[in-house]
Amino acid sequence: MAVITLTTDFGLADSYVGAMKGLLLSRCPEAQLVDITHEVPPQNIRAGAMRLAAAARYFPPRTVHLAVVDPGVGSDRRAVAVYSCGQTFVGPDNGLLSIAAPPGSPGWQGVELTREDLWLTPVSSTFHGRDVFAPVAAHLASGQPLEVVGRPIDSILILDLPRPQPIDEGLRGTVIDVDRFGNLITNVREEHLTGRRLVEAIVGEIRIEFLTHRYDPQRALVTLFNSDGWLEVAAPGGSAATRLGRGLDTPVLLRLEDGNPG
Amino acid sequence: MAVITLTTDFGLADSYVGAMKGLLLSRCPEAQLVDITHEVPPQNIRAGAMRLAAAARYFPPRTVHLAVVDPGVGSDRRAVAVYSCGQTFVGPDNGLLSIAAPPGSPGWQGVELTREDLWLTPVSSTFHGRDVFAPVAAHLASGQPLEVVGRPIDSILILDLPRPQPIDEGLRGTVIDVDRFGNLITNVREEHLTGRRLVEAIVGEIRIEFLTHRYDPQRALVTLFNSDGWLEVAAPGGSAATRLGRGLDTPVLLRLEDGNPG
Amino acid sequence: MAVITLTTDFGLADSYVGAMKGLLLSRCPEAQLVDITHEVPPQNIRAGAMRLAAAARYFPPRTVHLAVVDPGVGSDRRAVAVYSCGQTFVGPDNGLLSIAAPPGSPGWQGVELTREDLWLTPVSSTFHGRDVFAPVAAHLASGQPLEVVGRPIDSILILDLPRPQPIDEGLRGTVIDVDRFGNLITNVREEHLTGRRLVEAIVGEIRIEFLTHRYDPQRALVTLFNSDGWLEVAAPGGSAATRLGRGLDTPVLLRLEDGNPG
Repeated sequence: MAVITLTTDFGLADSYVGAMKGLLLSRCPEAQLVDITHEVPPQNIRAGAMRLAAAARYFPPRTVHLAVVDPGVGSDRRAVAVYSCGQTFVGPDNGLLSIAAPPGSPGWQGVELTREDLWLTPVSSTFHGRDVFAPVAAHLASGQPLEVVGRPIDSILILDLPRPQPIDEGLRGTVIDVDRFGNLITNVREEHLTGRRLVEAIVGEIRIEFLTHRYDPQRALVTLFNSDGWLEVAAPGGSAATRLGRGLDTPVLLRLEDGNPG
Repeated sequence: MAVITLTTDFGLADSYVGAMKGLLLSRCPEAQLVDITHEVPPQNIRAGAMRLAAAARYFPPRTVHLAVVDPGVGSDRRAVAVYSCGQTFVGPDNGLLSIAAPPGSPGWQGVELTREDLWLTPVSSTFHGRDVFAPVAAHLASGQPLEVVGRPIDSILILDLPRPQPIDEGLRGTVIDVDRFGNLITNVREEHLTGRRLVEAIVGEIRIEFLTHRYDPQRALVTLFNSDGWLEVAAPGGSAATRLGRGLDTPVLLRLEDGNPG
Repeated sequence: MAVITLTTDFGLADSYVGAMKGLLLSRCPEAQLVDITHEVPPQNIRAGAMRLAAAARYFPPRTVHLAVVDPGVGSDRRAVAVYSCGQTFVGPDNGLLSIAAPPGSPGWQGVELTREDLWLTPVSSTFHGRDVFAPVAAHLASGQPLEVVGRPIDSILILDLPRPQPIDEGLRGTVIDVDRFGNLITNVREEHLTGRRLVEAIVGEIRIEFLTHRYDPQRALVTLFNSDGWLEVAAPGGSAATRLGRGLDTPVLLRLEDGNPG
């Protein structure tokens, strides 16, 4: 049983995802197709990269992850396939694969896709998801090794994620994703606190004193390290994004004190 | 072939559903995963319970239904698995499973999930869908019996659905769901009419005289018992919700007369 | 392995799609279910027909395509199954199948569904997707031939797609679909140009001079023949629908000149 996942910004309303799945099953009939998401905000490579990485690690070894958020389709950006930690990733070389499969991760190998005879003929200039990436993903899911679909490369484009900035009081983080529940997910991980205690988080004029481990319904707003390890601002039972009127790229100031982590 | 369905309020944009599916396939590679819906309104247990029940009955025996609408995640609400009518249901004990698998239904058995060694390690406090419920569902779909995943319980929390109220003219029902087409679905079933004839339904100031069996395009508004047995108010070719400017929790007065049902 | 695809206007929030999938798996346990889309605009047969056709051709031979956009459910419109180009299509006879499986296509055969004993009992008047079409699709996916599910018919209802109109300067096309990216997709195909060169496209007051092959980021607006062969107006990196403030049914004037195609 070969598992192929799909992560795109195509949405579910049009025929694009259906066409890709048809092609995958035509080329690899035994594949089990699993959607990670098709609702990446249009052309938002960072959001796509984060969502792919957050889900991919839970899939079995030998899973093939097909990811297409591809504003540069038809330009000279490379098309690549990458092997990392027992799984394979296929997509445009624009940073989309770089969080899930960073160069240097265990067993990392990469190829630039060059085997045009595997692709759909003719290749359109606007839909490489169907014409290039899906045929290659199907080929790899059928058990072919990476070197069959292209020529070796040393690295891929690395996404430039904003990093938390040290400030006098502690750290300045940034909201890098907002989920369906309105949780504001920052770029801060527990290791960034370097053992210091989080005293409060400040978003705009609002001070949030509570670092909790769960969505405590007694609190209007809390901060917690979420199930993927990111610090998030949440409004238990509601939406922090709505309550604070804030979204992507909002600065979140973290006041830290020496001592045991809060 | 083991079928596992998923019903959540996670939406399809984030990585949550993908992570759960990855874990399910890692633990039960032969599972066929089927979405019931992930668009339950956030934290709306009643809507989740109704949609799960409406779809579950059409699935084959031995299907495992994984359902997560879980505002109390991380609190002391129980996690449960329930066997009912040949199928298995896994989720939080907050009423979500109680319409599909009510205590007393044929073959009913329940367990509280206690086998922590089956769960993901460490268990997060915010995502039991991935860390607790998915591993248990995979285990059960692999053919393990219910008693392996927890200790027996006698009942589960029963959802308190609003019931139609008798009034002088007949019944007062309530809109308990609104579907994509804008149909206003009430809590009234044919047995509530106790043989009386529905003369008219009154929503706000609007009187709807027609109890039909289909979306009759000759009528602006109709009432009918829908494919799940609920009385609904529909606007054939349009949206009753829009036309009436009404939604969830709207009262629907039903004027009934003795005689043959309409 | 039998592949069954689903194309509907049911949306993904309610239980309708889940109920259909349950029934499909109950009747054809070995089926692999693949969504084309469930986000066809409600009761928009033309959009459903176009999206089904755009995706269906990439699926393997013997795929069964189940399609339900069915404003006439419960009326006397026929229910049909059609064989075309090695695949089978099941749905209402309202034009929905006529782009993907037009009468006259290779191997075309059709039947009106009449084998009521195969359907769910009792058949509701509002949900033939679950009660009629899904059981028939499952039966066909299990390997039964078309003549087993109904009686032969010579044709099906053909959808009346708007055709580009010749005008003095060239052609007047119409926007027949808008995709997630805001691309305005017209009813014009390359053969309609009959070898003439596209000089400019005019939408409202805006003139678009560039016929390109890709989403060229140097241009605010371009026209190109998309991956399905339709002429579309696109705003590279943005939404042409938003930028032009235009949508479905917008006229697009094409100024053509003799000479090599642009």
